[in-house]
Amino acid sequence: MKVEAVLSPAEPLPGGYAAALVVDVIRATTTAAYLLQAGAGELLLTGELEEARKLAAARGALLAGERGGLPPAGFDLGNSPREAARLDLQGRTVVMTTTNGTRAALRAAEVVGEVALGALVNAGAAVRWAAGFDSLLLVAAGRGGRLALDDAYAIGAIVAGLQEVGELKAGDQARLALELARADARAILKASAAGRALEPVGLADDVDFCARRDALRLLPVLKGREKGALVFAGAVF
Amino acid sequence: MKVEAVLSPAEPLPGGYAAALVVDVIRATTTAAYLLQAGAGELLLTGELEEARKLAAARGALLAGERGGLPPAGFDLGNSPREAARLDLQGRTVVMTTTNGTRAALRAAEVVGEVALGALVNAGAAVRWAAGFDSLLLVAAGRGGRLALDDAYAIGAIVAGLQEVGELKAGDQARLALELARADARAILKASAAGRALEPVGLADDVDFCARRDALRLLPVLKGREKGALVFAGAVF
Repeated sequence: MKVEAVLSPAEPLPGGYAAALVVDVIRATTTAAYLLQAGAGELLLTGELEEARKLAAARGALLAGERGGLPPAGFDLGNSPREAARLDLQGRTVVMTTTNGTRAALRAAEVVGEVALGALVNAGAAVRWAAGFDSLLLVAAGRGGRLALDDAYAIGAIVAGLQEVGELKAGDQARLALELARADARAILKASAAGRALEPVGLADDVDFCARRDALRLLPVLKGREKGALVFAGAVF
Repeated sequence: MKVEAVLSPAEPLPGGYAAALVVDVIRATTTAAYLLQAGAGELLLTGELEEARKLAAARGALLAGERGGLPPAGFDLGNSPREAARLDLQGRTVVMTTTNGTRAALRAAEVVGEVALGALVNAGAAVRWAAGFDSLLLVAAGRGGRLALDDAYAIGAIVAGLQEVGELKAGDQARLALELARADARAILKASAAGRALEPVGLADDVDFCARRDALRLLPVLKGREKGALVFAGAVF
């Protein structure tokens, strides 16, 4: 299996991959998994705030996401996986927009047909999904247009899982991430800029929540598009 | 000491650092060290082939460098550190241009005042030079506009050395590189795309040469500019 990562959001995404896993471990792709686990039928990812508000109004959907780590005005939910895990969203649709993760998902969907959102809480499910393809691109959301330690770590954990399934032909960035995955998840996530940024806004506990390996078997998988938004549904692997 | 790395050449270089170390371990910054160790008084780095040819003609200098890993037409020397180590360049000036490393050095010199070229062969010297500043930016040359495993590893080795000297305030990318530095130098360099690319052109032995830690105490340090080129001289640390 051919595996490569693009760890910096400043790099263009290469074509020629059958599937892509988008990773924004602190916190968008972790939260996305919990919103679907909480029962939401569909999760619509969209780039702009106004687009998200219009889409939610048209669909009678809940609005989730963040700017600067906190929920924008009028949003029903933030970008906290701990919050999402406590909800019952049975039968609801959620429209979500975040600073880095949403943009990464939109970019990945431009160049790759099969897209899912991966994190540490569903790293095993991500591996089982990805193992069905002959090539995989791992796309890190990063932070402010730069490589982020937490996303590189989670990508490494997924590459390590794939290595147990079969032989990998891994590029430079997938290999780098794999070396990083030997470190401790909590220590790395706590040390990352994304992890440290949650402390002053009182959301430091979210970091431990994001660091829990394989808490879920659900993976958000792209099933279609709606007015520029990506539509994800939960699938169990 | 504040330390951060920019591992992907696609990311802009941040300002606010006292010093920058540019790393293109396979092979430009390793070769640069050996050209100065061989006795060259000055090493001029320049971006374009024609610019390099003109500068060398004007200065009576030797021309060194590569395009696609091999010396361009009319060049006296390639970009091989093994070749450079066998030369006597006493009293000579060398004009050098390479695909990735030269560009990284030119970018670093735009935003940071004090610039040196670091590699594994002079990692200790790079650490001793950098320890004299209160902030350091490590700039990876990468490969074809993307993050390269070999440069990230060498940067990690330098960050590890700095950690032994004093307390570091390290950003995400410096921390990532530090984790990578636990791996074996030869194994990482051999596995990297840059290392693998040297095999078909018969230069695989250069990779082992680039992997030798602290073979030199010489560091190429920026001492001025000349018609758009960066002028480096060797300093012992």
